[in-house]
Amino acid sequence: MNFEFHNPTHLIFGAGTLSRIGEVVSKHGKKALIVTGGGSVKRNGTFDRVVASLKNANVSVAECSGVEPNPRITTVRRGAQIARNEHCDVIIALGGGSVMDASKVMAAAFYYDGDPWDMIYHGQPDPYIPTHALPIITVPTLAATGSEMNMGAVISNEESKEKSFVQAECLYPRVALVDPELTMSVPKDQTAYGVCDLITHVTEGYFNGVDGTPIQDRFAEGVILTAMEWGPKAIADGNDLEARTQVQWASIVALNGWVNAGTNGGYPVHMIEHTLSAYHDITHAAGLAVINPSWMRFAADHRPQKFVQFAERIFGLKATGPHDLDCALQGIDRFEAFLKGIGCPTRLSELHIDDTMITRYAQDTLRIIHDGNGNLPGRPPMTEANIIAVLKAAL
Amino acid sequence: MNFEFHNPTHLIFGAGTLSRIGEVVSKHGKKALIVTGGGSVKRNGTFDRVVASLKNANVSVAECSGVEPNPRITTVRRGAQIARNEHCDVIIALGGGSVMDASKVMAAAFYYDGDPWDMIYHGQPDPYIPTHALPIITVPTLAATGSEMNMGAVISNEESKEKSFVQAECLYPRVALVDPELTMSVPKDQTAYGVCDLITHVTEGYFNGVDGTPIQDRFAEGVILTAMEWGPKAIADGNDLEARTQVQWASIVALNGWVNAGTNGGYPVHMIEHTLSAYHDITHAAGLAVINPSWMRFAADHRPQKFVQFAERIFGLKATGPHDLDCALQGIDRFEAFLKGIGCPTRLSELHIDDTMITRYAQDTLRIIHDGNGNLPGRPPMTEANIIAVLKAAL
Repeated sequence: MNFEFHNPTHLIFGAGTLSRIGEVVSKHGKKALIVTGGGSVKRNGTFDRVVASLKNANVSVAECSGVEPNPRITTVRRGAQIARNEHCDVIIALGGGSVMDASKVMAAAFYYDGDPWDMIYHGQPDPYIPTHALPIITVPTLAATGSEMNMGAVISNEESKEKSFVQAECLYPRVALVDPELTMSVPKDQTAYGVCDLITHVTEGYFNGVDGTPIQDRFAEGVILTAMEWGPKAIADGNDLEARTQVQWASIVALNGWVNAGTNGGYPVHMIEHTLSAYHDITHAAGLAVINPSWMRFAADHRPQKFVQFAERIFGLKATGPHDLDCALQGIDRFEAFLKGIGCPTRLSELHIDDTMITRYAQDTLRIIHDGNGNLPGRPPMTEANIIAVLKAAL
Repeated sequence: MNFEFHNPTHLIFGAGTLSRIGEVVSKHGKKALIVTGGGSVKRNGTFDRVVASLKNANVSVAECSGVEPNPRITTVRRGAQIARNEHCDVIIALGGGSVMDASKVMAAAFYYDGDPWDMIYHGQPDPYIPTHALPIITVPTLAATGSEMNMGAVISNEESKEKSFVQAECLYPRVALVDPELTMSVPKDQTAYGVCDLITHVTEGYFNGVDGTPIQDRFAEGVILTAMEWGPKAIADGNDLEARTQVQWASIVALNGWVNAGTNGGYPVHMIEHTLSAYHDITHAAGLAVINPSWMRFAADHRPQKFVQFAERIFGLKATGPHDLDCALQGIDRFEAFLKGIGCPTRLSELHIDDTMITRYAQDTLRIIHDGNGNLPGRPPMTEANIIAVLKAAL
């Protein structure tokens, strides 16, 4: 277990903290680009509260609205251009994962003369890793991605049908201002997708990481158990602030590096899903909900003991031993039933995806990321045939 | 659950990483003050390896050796003076918790014209919180305090018989270079104390924090379970690198803020222990091992449900309900038996401490830290009589 860890983001967490946005941003800039999504923050008054708080702190404002789900590189280019034209010196990402991811790449694109798509990992040549970015302040309105406190972003290219990621030290937000009250208006389906998203972030590292990480395992199990306890409460009653708070805290620690430090795992489920949503513009976590259980059944055969541990510690099942594949598969069934129970799809057909392009999904996934042997990194590494089999089993 | 979190320390973790010390330090300074303790790093060659690596990286060296267990303010003054005289621009803490804590305060004292004791919390007047410090690089040789990746330090004043703490943003180490191989020569008793120390860091937040922190609870339990599984292996065979690695990782996450973020708890066991070791110069964790179970029995009465959770999740006991005090007390007995089993003392008499000065210990503890009502912060807050009762029960 050799690794490095560094996460300099300053987290301010708690109900009501949105009122501090002006004070916080004023330490990092005098003119903010506020990046938003489809408009919910305007309809529910959050945007106006932010602008008023900024005005009080003598921070002026420019705006880039309309970031779409599966944020597009064209939107990144547009936002970076606004930031330059308006001489912004700080970016506020006010929205969900799409808004935060797009904002991060806008912040780096501000200082980059080439095309920001160069920064996104998408096969040869190697991507340009940005080293400078405008200060980024994240204000999540959804509990899901954990983007508010990490250095990653996922961007889609609608022309080339590619969706992939960038990770760079300069993309760590300076401040993540996380106010769970902002998530209380999130509808049931998006709340459920957020729960699925955060759990999947954790299961990827848990099942694909190196052996011998007992603390990381316990942390991962703790996040999953908490999300499974409090997620359904947040879905049942969106105004349950305690449930919203617990789910949001879970979503942050799921992907800020605390849980998977040193596990060094691949993200095969994410990589496959990215290809699907590049073609079909589905909700990211809906794709994850479909692919993850199918991938688990494939991987359990290779590493039953980890899936047995999952079955025992998450669902309280009793295995006959560490290689009890039946128990492992029962645990996966229970996990899939949980996802179904909170309203997530678990079949590709529910996403209106059939088998006509399955080979292309597998090939595109491998074109974007593969190890030295041409396989998708993970435990086990996946061949094209493996990816096809996992997708077929999820039809 | 409203809180802020910020830990900018860059962690480099893993067996063999000591070889990177020159490269790492050279990014932060050209002349390093190497701070060491009783001399083990000289006897086992670690010091020479560090100096050679620094030389290769064109970093020159000054030295402050002889930091004692329960590090003294006189030593801090001496180290800061060496750093000034020798025009050092970076401090390397090469040792255990005492060395790291002393180094942090030396680094701040470098920029402070007054007496560094001003920075230590010790009753009226309020302490001076430092805002500047030399860059600090921690290289722990013991898995225990977690000081390598946090902003705290504990210092003793041998004249006034006070031992207390400072916490300041500028005291976060720039880099924690953590090489578990360095801990392989730690003797059995010190290894056991380290395990007790790290577990106690976690139990303090767990039992004294606010309600409604399910993830933090799971994280705390994960650290305790891991320390209880791997600690005895590291004690049994000091050359078991995997056990050393797991215990060291546990000791870091126990006190780097990840486990207790948002729990906002007091540290009553630590505060009482500090008074004892100010008078008796005992090993910190030996004092914790004696006081913690006694404190738990006192606190269980006030908050049985948390102790029932501890008994169930750590020891697999089955309670009749969340207020099953018998089950709670059984869990505490099991915990005390674990400490005894790894070789920790669990009675004051084993530390050669009797009841003659118990009232003074209680009064001194409350003089250094108390809430608005004159009680020691914690759940429940402790009166002088409570502290005396906890100590008497541990005689």
